[in-house]
Amino acid sequence: MNINAPRGTADILPKESQKWQYVENKIKGICETYHFDEIRTPLFEHTEVFARGVGESTDIVQKEMYTFLDRGGRSLTLRPEGTAAVTRAFVQNKLFGDPNQPVKLYYFMQMFRYERPQHGRMRQLNQFGVEVMGSEDPAVDAEVIDLAMTVYRELGLSSLKLVINSLGDKESRKNYRDALIKHFTPHKEELCKDCQSRLEQNPLRILDCKVDREHPAMKTAPSILEYLNDESKEYFEQVKAYLDVMGIEYVVDPNLVRGLDYYNHTAFEIMSEAEGFGAITTLAGGGRYNGLVEQLGGPNTPGMGFGMGMERLLLALEAENVEIPLDDQLDCYLVAMGENVKKEAVRIVHELRKNGIQVDQDYQGRKFKAQFKAADRYKAKFVLVLGEDELKNRVVNVKNMATGEQTEVPLDQLVTTMKENLLGGVGHE
Amino acid sequence: MNINAPRGTADILPKESQKWQYVENKIKGICETYHFDEIRTPLFEHTEVFARGVGESTDIVQKEMYTFLDRGGRSLTLRPEGTAAVTRAFVQNKLFGDPNQPVKLYYFMQMFRYERPQHGRMRQLNQFGVEVMGSEDPAVDAEVIDLAMTVYRELGLSSLKLVINSLGDKESRKNYRDALIKHFTPHKEELCKDCQSRLEQNPLRILDCKVDREHPAMKTAPSILEYLNDESKEYFEQVKAYLDVMGIEYVVDPNLVRGLDYYNHTAFEIMSEAEGFGAITTLAGGGRYNGLVEQLGGPNTPGMGFGMGMERLLLALEAENVEIPLDDQLDCYLVAMGENVKKEAVRIVHELRKNGIQVDQDYQGRKFKAQFKAADRYKAKFVLVLGEDELKNRVVNVKNMATGEQTEVPLDQLVTTMKENLLGGVGHE
Repeated sequence: MNINAPRGTADILPKESQKWQYVENKIKGICETYHFDEIRTPLFEHTEVFARGVGESTDIVQKEMYTFLDRGGRSLTLRPEGTAAVTRAFVQNKLFGDPNQPVKLYYFMQMFRYERPQHGRMRQLNQFGVEVMGSEDPAVDAEVIDLAMTVYRELGLSSLKLVINSLGDKESRKNYRDALIKHFTPHKEELCKDCQSRLEQNPLRILDCKVDREHPAMKTAPSILEYLNDESKEYFEQVKAYLDVMGIEYVVDPNLVRGLDYYNHTAFEIMSEAEGFGAITTLAGGGRYNGLVEQLGGPNTPGMGFGMGMERLLLALEAENVEIPLDDQLDCYLVAMGENVKKEAVRIVHELRKNGIQVDQDYQGRKFKAQFKAADRYKAKFVLVLGEDELKNRVVNVKNMATGEQTEVPLDQLVTTMKENLLGGVGHE
Repeated sequence: MNINAPRGTADILPKESQKWQYVENKIKGICETYHFDEIRTPLFEHTEVFARGVGESTDIVQKEMYTFLDRGGRSLTLRPEGTAAVTRAFVQNKLFGDPNQPVKLYYFMQMFRYERPQHGRMRQLNQFGVEVMGSEDPAVDAEVIDLAMTVYRELGLSSLKLVINSLGDKESRKNYRDALIKHFTPHKEELCKDCQSRLEQNPLRILDCKVDREHPAMKTAPSILEYLNDESKEYFEQVKAYLDVMGIEYVVDPNLVRGLDYYNHTAFEIMSEAEGFGAITTLAGGGRYNGLVEQLGGPNTPGMGFGMGMERLLLALEAENVEIPLDDQLDCYLVAMGENVKKEAVRIVHELRKNGIQVDQDYQGRKFKAQFKAADRYKAKFVLVLGEDELKNRVVNVKNMATGEQTEVPLDQLVTTMKENLLGGVGHE
């Protein structure tokens, strides 16, 4: 009887994990260039962090969280998104008191959402994200968007669409909220159940309802951009000007409201326009969340960030046929034969590895021929042969598999020779 | 009102996370050299995986698991240890069918145990571990132990103690089990409650009971080594011979039984002997688990592995005063002054980063002097100054902070110049 991984979760197996490592390392390098530092937070938080941080009325909090009581009876929730968790850590660890402001953080986190699993949507998903806390400079908004776009470009994606919007400051958002309530109330009965309750709690979210998308009142709904006060308008203009100066193309979509409560001013999404990418095209999304730090118990602190789905990033790379450069060759394989030879083989392998040389050997009691086949399957660059004769003469037969060249190398010169062959010659380092 | 991280969990903040990255990268490099590939499994599994894999009678399963029902009513458990999870993945993904045997896997995983938190023991903890499945060559046991020791040595630890033991094969273990029951039954009433039930379920575990440690019957208990059959004895001899040939020192301790049900033949632990390391000295532990794959629904497959606590590894490095080499210098800081300058500053920063140069700038509206101070705090190697005058003349003033040397660099040559300064000259790459 087999037990499978829970529904909506997946194992990442060796060949696949190399791709993940490649992508993650590339992203980490970009984050360093942009002067962001890594933060890691626990897998679960007190449920309140998300209830208050993400918003009680959001789908995430209402329907999708993995919430449970621990053995001490406390309500814990597996992290459904990064911003609230990082904000909690920012407050608890008093990062607002650091002289280096803003605090620029990045993370690789697993997230957990109890949703219907589908292509590109998992219950356990991986996100890369950044959060910049402590600055309300519109140049930060542009920097954060730039970083996200740079990650995609550097990895080789080209069919991308950047959509931006402004949700304005508190005042603008409140005025817009009132206008939306006024606009949708006459149609209340025609809207879906969710939108009916959204009308009271968070009318902005009616605009990205998938059910009521075709309702005529949607098309005539007022635009947030008409309700921005001068300050919010000016802020948005500056963000756009910075994007322009960096040569980053974008589309303004006044209906982009994002599903979370905490956003204000800048909101953005990056979509894949690759053919055959699938129905869910959003690769990353984020925005400004001035006020969230305060809401989680810290001082008034502005914030800006995004989350980027790693599974979707890998799907997008596939959809655009971007090949990830993987090193699938083994440096050395030691073929050892004969009863007495094994101990010396173990010693040699240990010695080579100690000197940074990648090497493997047979652990299956395979015969000569089968060991050579294994070396082939591993695409070994060098096959080292140690038989009874070689052992007696204290040599190893070294075969360069690219050239076919064979040389007998004295045992006590093997490390030096292989270092020259692999680390010196091929420019490995 | 503040919300803290759940008890027994911790945030890893920027400066600390650099240490983690350093250690993880070092370990990944060693794993590559040893020809291990990374596997990642979900954070939670069906509870059965651990109940069957780790053993119903273990402390982990009986007292320490984070078990909860998901919204569909299925019992899930946050991963308390790696071997059962990796074995489940090995079976589900049919890795036993891979022509490349044994399958050599490594992982970095968070584990979850509901225990009383103390120094070096967290409820969410991080482990590095390896699993080799598909070979019963004693050279694999030695290879796995070698890898663990190499990780510690390469990171700079020297006060280490390797303890090994053999729990024998099924037959040996059964005979020993019977002998232990016979030995302890007359003392049953004098033992602690846990040990009384261990006497029936798993008498081996009486030997590592912390409560009954001083009971006289402990000292007179039979040794597993007297109960090994010839095959098991021979197997253990070979493992020791391979360790000898690699120059790895060890102590044989017949009382080392490990807390988990699945071990047979080789068991080992690595302890820190550093002064002031604390009460819990075990850094890593593992052993052979032939039979576990079958228990989780796969074909009869031998296995061998270990788990290594990352938190304890970092504590051990601290206890031995090993300094982790961290790059705490920023490459460039752009000081920009004047209303019109900001847009060009954003463009320059974008341009430099696009070319792989690490650079940051002010986002706090700071004055000239305060920006220079920020550059100092970041230990900037180069400070680039862009004022109204420089902008007019299309130049940037570049100051090398190590030498004090200042040069005016035309804007259109800035990238080339900084690449030479940073990537060429210092041997960065």
